[in-house]
This record gives sequence, structure tokens and C-alpha cells, in this order.
Amino acid sequence: MGILVDVGVIGAGPGGYIAAIRAAQLGLSVACIDDWKNVSSGPAPGGTCVNVGCIPSKALLESSANFDMVKNGAAAHGIEVKGATLNLNRMLGRKDDVVKRSNEGILFLFRKNGVSFYHGTASFAGTSEAGYELKVSGKEEQFLTCRHVIIATGSTPRSLPDLAFDEKRILSNAGALAMESVPKRLGIIGAGVIGLELGSVWHRLGSKVTLLESQPTLLSMADRQIAGEALKFMRAQGLTIQTGAAIRNIDTAQSSVTVEYDDANGSVQRATFDRLIVAIGRVPRTSGLDAHNIGLKLDERGFIAVDGECRTNLQNVWAIGDVVRGPMLAHKAQEEGIAVADRIAGKYGHVNYATIPSIVYTHPEVAWAGKTEQELEAEGCEFRAGTFPFMANGRARAMNSTEGFVKILADAHTDEVLGVHMIGPMVSELIAEVVLAMSFKASSEDIAQVCHAHPTLSEAVREAALGVNGRLLNY
Amino acid sequence: MGILVDVGVIGAGPGGYIAAIRAAQLGLSVACIDDWKNVSSGPAPGGTCVNVGCIPSKALLESSANFDMVKNGAAAHGIEVKGATLNLNRMLGRKDDVVKRSNEGILFLFRKNGVSFYHGTASFAGTSEAGYELKVSGKEEQFLTCRHVIIATGSTPRSLPDLAFDEKRILSNAGALAMESVPKRLGIIGAGVIGLELGSVWHRLGSKVTLLESQPTLLSMADRQIAGEALKFMRAQGLTIQTGAAIRNIDTAQSSVTVEYDDANGSVQRATFDRLIVAIGRVPRTSGLDAHNIGLKLDERGFIAVDGECRTNLQNVWAIGDVVRGPMLAHKAQEEGIAVADRIAGKYGHVNYATIPSIVYTHPEVAWAGKTEQELEAEGCEFRAGTFPFMANGRARAMNSTEGFVKILADAHTDEVLGVHMIGPMVSELIAEVVLAMSFKASSEDIAQVCHAHPTLSEAVREAALGVNGRLLNY
Repeated sequence: MGILVDVGVIGAGPGGYIAAIRAAQLGLSVACIDDWKNVSSGPAPGGTCVNVGCIPSKALLESSANFDMVKNGAAAHGIEVKGATLNLNRMLGRKDDVVKRSNEGILFLFRKNGVSFYHGTASFAGTSEAGYELKVSGKEEQFLTCRHVIIATGSTPRSLPDLAFDEKRILSNAGALAMESVPKRLGIIGAGVIGLELGSVWHRLGSKVTLLESQPTLLSMADRQIAGEALKFMRAQGLTIQTGAAIRNIDTAQSSVTVEYDDANGSVQRATFDRLIVAIGRVPRTSGLDAHNIGLKLDERGFIAVDGECRTNLQNVWAIGDVVRGPMLAHKAQEEGIAVADRIAGKYGHVNYATIPSIVYTHPEVAWAGKTEQELEAEGCEFRAGTFPFMANGRARAMNSTEGFVKILADAHTDEVLGVHMIGPMVSELIAEVVLAMSFKASSEDIAQVCHAHPTLSEAVREAALGVNGRLLNY
Repeated sequence: MGILVDVGVIGAGPGGYIAAIRAAQLGLSVACIDDWKNVSSGPAPGGTCVNVGCIPSKALLESSANFDMVKNGAAAHGIEVKGATLNLNRMLGRKDDVVKRSNEGILFLFRKNGVSFYHGTASFAGTSEAGYELKVSGKEEQFLTCRHVIIATGSTPRSLPDLAFDEKRILSNAGALAMESVPKRLGIIGAGVIGLELGSVWHRLGSKVTLLESQPTLLSMADRQIAGEALKFMRAQGLTIQTGAAIRNIDTAQSSVTVEYDDANGSVQRATFDRLIVAIGRVPRTSGLDAHNIGLKLDERGFIAVDGECRTNLQNVWAIGDVVRGPMLAHKAQEEGIAVADRIAGKYGHVNYATIPSIVYTHPEVAWAGKTEQELEAEGCEFRAGTFPFMANGRARAMNSTEGFVKILADAHTDEVLGVHMIGPMVSELIAEVVLAMSFKASSEDIAQVCHAHPTLSEAVREAALGVNGRLLNY
């Protein structure tokens, strides 16, 4: 029998590491096992989010936005730049440094909170009277006996059939964040969040970027008005976006990739790229767990089957984050991690799945929470919409960032806010206010009654709320 | 008798123009009179805020921050700038354009909402059975008879005794936003919001800036911990800040200004500047109203005396914004304007004076709402504080903006959030969430329960809320 702990957490991504810390804070003994390796083969906790997802992509989005500002935005402010060149190595180095500090931050938090960290791959070796036996395969082999197990193994990028990621020519998110030169012609299959963010980065750095999207719109889960605006802005920036594109064939040559596809009109098109990013979604990561050893049930799509409280079919085995149903978002995983730790400790765990925000960190940014117009229509729910454009917002004008708008959807009878949809400057941060309001089941009038500082972008939120009842003040 | 209207609004600053629009939307006939002139002597509604306050200062803060980024921040991102020069004329031109669009926007809103705009100075000519007689002195002289009057005449910069603003050597906020060259040596009397913002602008553009502040700290109305951090960051940026400085004498010469002052140790110091900004506060603007004609009462400090609902001593005469008690903030004026329009229309007007946010748009930004630690201590209120540094926030790291922290103060017994104090990136926008929460009388646990998107700066708000109960997850 291995080292006995109350909770064994498999995976130190945003769901796992937060669950481990919370459980430890609640007085439980906790082990967290993670196999991500840094360049020196040392531990790199934080999962996809920290290592090849949210964090490095935001670092490059920030750096590339600055590059774009220096080259294309500074003149309007009266700043005359003689010339600016990209030191890609240094830009990537800063990104790597941000990642490293995040890795180290999590290890520090584990020590501070008394979480035992194991660097290696965890698999179910069996059960004993004391709990579940986990085998940790790292530098050495270790065994843990866990009263509870939280599976937080995350997800991996989905590849196209017969087109494995080689991270040189055919790139997943990992390779797309580490290209050692700016490709002249960059193709991206999939105009979802990852495709749009990475496409923006490399476009700003000089690539000619083409996105091929099978759906008739991009961001199909977003409100259609917002998605339409996003498409317009992305195209205006110079990204080529083909919606309704059906891939027929992909030929990988020594130094290029040629994609043959049917365009939206059914005509065959061929496009040749120096590199191709495949960003068509992600799949739950369950291989390596040896889940069959304990009879853990998966659902028909390969996710670990859980109930609304993240309980698997096995007593005291929980699963959270990308490896279970629901949106593959770091903060959704964190919410589940906190709630499961609370439940294990005998407390009430709480996740409000109706108010989980989504963000796309393009320029302008896109953010939303709650129901879209098309969802409310499909449900037959009567609603009113209030919309306010950033063009009419003083701070947006002062920032030279007047693209986009805020839209609030409220129940026509109760005025409860049912959804918020934004495209514009810093909407990634503006969304927090409305998510909090929705968590309180606020009405649009509640938001409209709250004093918003002037001049802030947040005033656009209040105006959209006023707009629900036909009371726009500044437009 | 003049043209009869339900409501005459004197002043088209943020309080006045919003009151006028809201009143018109409520079905009242409304005239709004404003005397601000643009460079062509045409109307320039928007008051101090739009013309020489919030809006142009934010435009220059944004432009100068970009200049600073190009010169000092880009290299860290791997952007090699060959050289960058300031075209001040163009920078100021953009600022002027932002102001002009705001002026025009308000005129458009007046037309859209059916508000009659009069360009000129309004004074009380007397009363009649129908209401108050206002004389409008503009290009021509006109008379209005108003059932209700809302006085929203704002404020003017306070000058030092015997030192009038000449806007060449001795500058108010107006002159400080329009210098035709970057002064080598810029002195600023007063390290309040205006002094710090304008000092930041000109420091970034190349001035050697010295701030002389009579108080022992800067931002004395802010939480002392925040004020201390702000002082530290401002000094680290290269601004010279002398606190506890008592001005003895100011000598204005042809091309320089020499200030003699006692420093905090009581030693006499002399400093010579090319220009001197005096930013020691503002005084209510009541001259020109001929208030004595109708017996309008002022308070001992020269403000129009009003009750908690902005009623003056005269039936149906209201006053709002900088010309009455309370913080001189555009959004406070707007709240009062909306509420007074509602009251005139027989509705319930609502201003929550306890949740009016304050913001300083320096780098890092400063924002707060509610009670400070020192206020709670003075009241003998038992509270708990939760603090979270941006250094531990993923998005702040990705942005290279890790200065500062969020602090939430909550009642030790009820957990109600009593104050929030922030210094850091974009806290001007993060404050909106907490102001909304405070408007709902939320507890810190309420905020901590709400899903915050990852990676966002807003997560720091949630962490600070977790910190109130000793539950920080990421620090």
C-alpha cells in the first residue's frame, strides 16, 4: 500500500492545482500528480493553460499588439517611429519567462499550502480497503493510496484524420506558440477561439494568415450579431477568413503544406502555406489513467461521465475540467475544483454553470456570458435587448479604440439579465461586472441604477442596461 | 415673459446635459443653456469634463502612455525601435479631435431627445407666476420661463492668492492640456488627482516634473496603503514629489517661475521651473447666475446649499454636480442629474453616495470606492481586509504590468463589503464589479463565489475577496 492521503489530484492544470490547494486549506492531506515537463525535464505544473494555452497566448497577444501599435497605431497619437523590427526570439523568450514564473508560482503555492507534489504520470493500479491505489511513474515509481481521487487530466488538441501534429509543418497550439520564425503564409484550420487568437498574433507579426472554417460563421457558440461583427473586424485587419470551407485533402511537402477545400460555393480551392495550424477542438485526455483497472465509466464522446456535482460512477472518484462535459475553459475547471474540494470536506460546493464567461482575446476582444439571442429565440423566451456602441463612449474615444458594442439581453417580463455579449476594448474585464450581476439574478434596471465611474469603458455596460428599457442617455 | 419650458438646465457639463436628456425622455420640455466656446466661438457643451478635464486628460494619458511604451516598454516584448520622436502638435490635435467629437455628440443627443440648446450665459432675471425667468446672454439676448431650474454650473480651478492663471507661465488644468512645447522643468503645486495625471503626461513626454504637495501624503482621501504605493511607484518612475511642502513665495519671471517653499523638515528650498501648474482644488462656479435676484442660498464655502435630494432653498430650483457639496466627479454629477430629472417627473430619484468610485488614471491606475481603512478605524468599525497582488495574476504577468494590488475591506461581523481599494493595471475598469456588488450590499463571500474568467485581471478582485476570509488560492 502506498502513502495514504485524503485526496489524490491527478493533473495540476487550473482545475487540479486549485482543487488541491482548496482541499489542503480545508484540512485534508493532499497529493497532486502532474507529468508536464519543462525544457529541463523538470516539473511544469499549470497544464495546457499555463504551458501552451491561456497564459503564453495572452503573453504573445500582448506583445504582438504592442508591435502592431508601434508599427501602425503610434502615428495617430503623434508618435513618429523611425523603424521597428521584431526580435522574435526575445518575444518568445518573454513568453517562456511568463510561463516559467507561473509554473514556479504553482510549486510555491503547493509548498505554502502543504500539498505534496509528484512529478510523473498517475494511473489507477487498483483499490484497497483504504481507497484507490495510484501508481506514479516519474523518475522513480511511487504509490499513493487515496481516500478520494480527483481526475483533472484535461484535454489534448484534436488532430485531423491521417494528419498527425509534427509541430514543424502541422502545428497544434503548442507548436503555434513556439515558431522560431514568422511564416510568410500561415494557414489555420478552424476559426474558433484558438484559431482567431493565434491567427491574430502571427498576422500582427507579419504572416499572411488564412483561416478555413467549416461552419458558415465563426464563433458559432457566440451571439450571432457579435460573431458577425468579429468576422467583419478580423477581415478588416487583413486576415483572410473562409467560412463554410470543407477540407478535401492536405498535402504536406518538405517546406510547405497545400490544402484543397471546397469553398462556401462548392468550388474547389487550393491554398499553399508554409505552416498549418490545426485548431479544430480538443479531446478529453484519459489515456494513461488505466481507468479500466477500476471500472471508471466514460461517456459516448470519451469524456469521463460525471453527474452535476462532478461525481463519477465510482464512490469517491471525482472528475473536473476539460476531461468532463461542459465548456473547456480554465475557469470552469477551477470552479469545479473548488466545489469538489468543498464537497469532499463535507461543505456545500457551488458552480453556477449558467454564468460562466467566454472570452476571445482578439482585437477587439469578445466576451459573453449567459444566453445568446439565438438561444432565447429557440427557447421561445421573450426578451428585450439593449445595445451601446463604444463609438459613443468617452474613454474608448480617448483610447482610439471605438470598435464594437455591449449588448444586454433581459427577460421581457421580469427584466432579469439573461445574457451579455460584448465586442470591444477590454471587454474581457468588463464582463466581470455583468457576471456578478447575473449571479445575483439582477435586472437590467439594477445595473442601470449603479454609479459607473466616468470616463470608463464600463459606462458602456450601464448604457446597454439603460437601453434594455429604451433609456439610452449617450446614444 | 420668455419661452416657457418645464425645465431649464444651466450648464451642459456631465451633470447638466444628462439631466436635460433624462428630463426630456420623461416627457418634459427642456432647455439647456451653456456658455462654453470652442476655438471658433461655437458651442462646446460638455463642461470642464469634456473640454479641459476627464476627456482630454485621458486622451493625453493614453497617447503619452503609448509614447512611453514605444520608448521604454517595447524592448522587453522583443520590439526593437530604431528611434521615436514626439510630434506634440499632432498628439494635441488628436486630443482636440476627441474633445470636438464629444462636443458634437452632446449637440446630437440634444437634437435627438428634443432638448432645446441655448449657447450663452444664463442668469436669474426674476420670478413670475409661471416660474423662474432666465436671461440667456449669447449672440443675442433671450428669455426663458422655467417651471423648474437645475443649476449645473460646475466649478473653476482654484488659484493661489495673488497668482492668477495666465495659462502661459502659471497654468490651470486648461493650460496644462495645451502647452505648445514640452517644458524642460515643470512644477506642479498639488499632488492630487489632477496634479498626478498631468504630471504623468508631461513626465512621459520628457519634462522633469516636480510636484509640491502640502499634505504629508499624496491622495489624502485614498486608503493610506494605496496612497503609499502610489507615491512609491510615481517616484520610481522619476517624478520628484515633495510632500509636506509649504509654499512661501512664487516669483514669475519672463521665462521661468521660481517657487520658494519649506520642505517637510522645515528647510527653505527654491526650485525654478519653465512652467508651473497649480492644481490645488476647484471652487464652485456661481458667479454670473445673479442668484441674489431670486434669493438663492449658498453655504459657507460658496457652494449652492442643497438637501440630500439636490433641492435648494427655493421651490423648484435644484442644483447638482460640482456646484454643490460632495466629490467633484463627473459621474457624481450625472447621478444627481438623473435623480433630479426623475424627481421633477414625479418618479423616485436615487443616488447612492456611499458607492461613488474615485479613479486616478496614472500608471499604475488607482481606484477606490467606499470606506478606507483609516475611516473604518476612526469609526471603530471592526473589519477584515483581503489583499491580492497583481504580481500573482496571470494576465498581469502576460501584460508585463504586475505593479499593485487589490484590497477589499469587509465588516468583521456581517462580511458586507465596506470598501475596495486598488492600484494596478486597468483598475479603473475593475472597480465597476465591486461598486455593483456594494450596491447590492454583497458580502466578500458573494464576490468570491462568482466565476471570474481566466486569465483576467478581474481574478485579482475575486482573490482579494477570498483573502478577506483567509482563503487566497493563488498567493
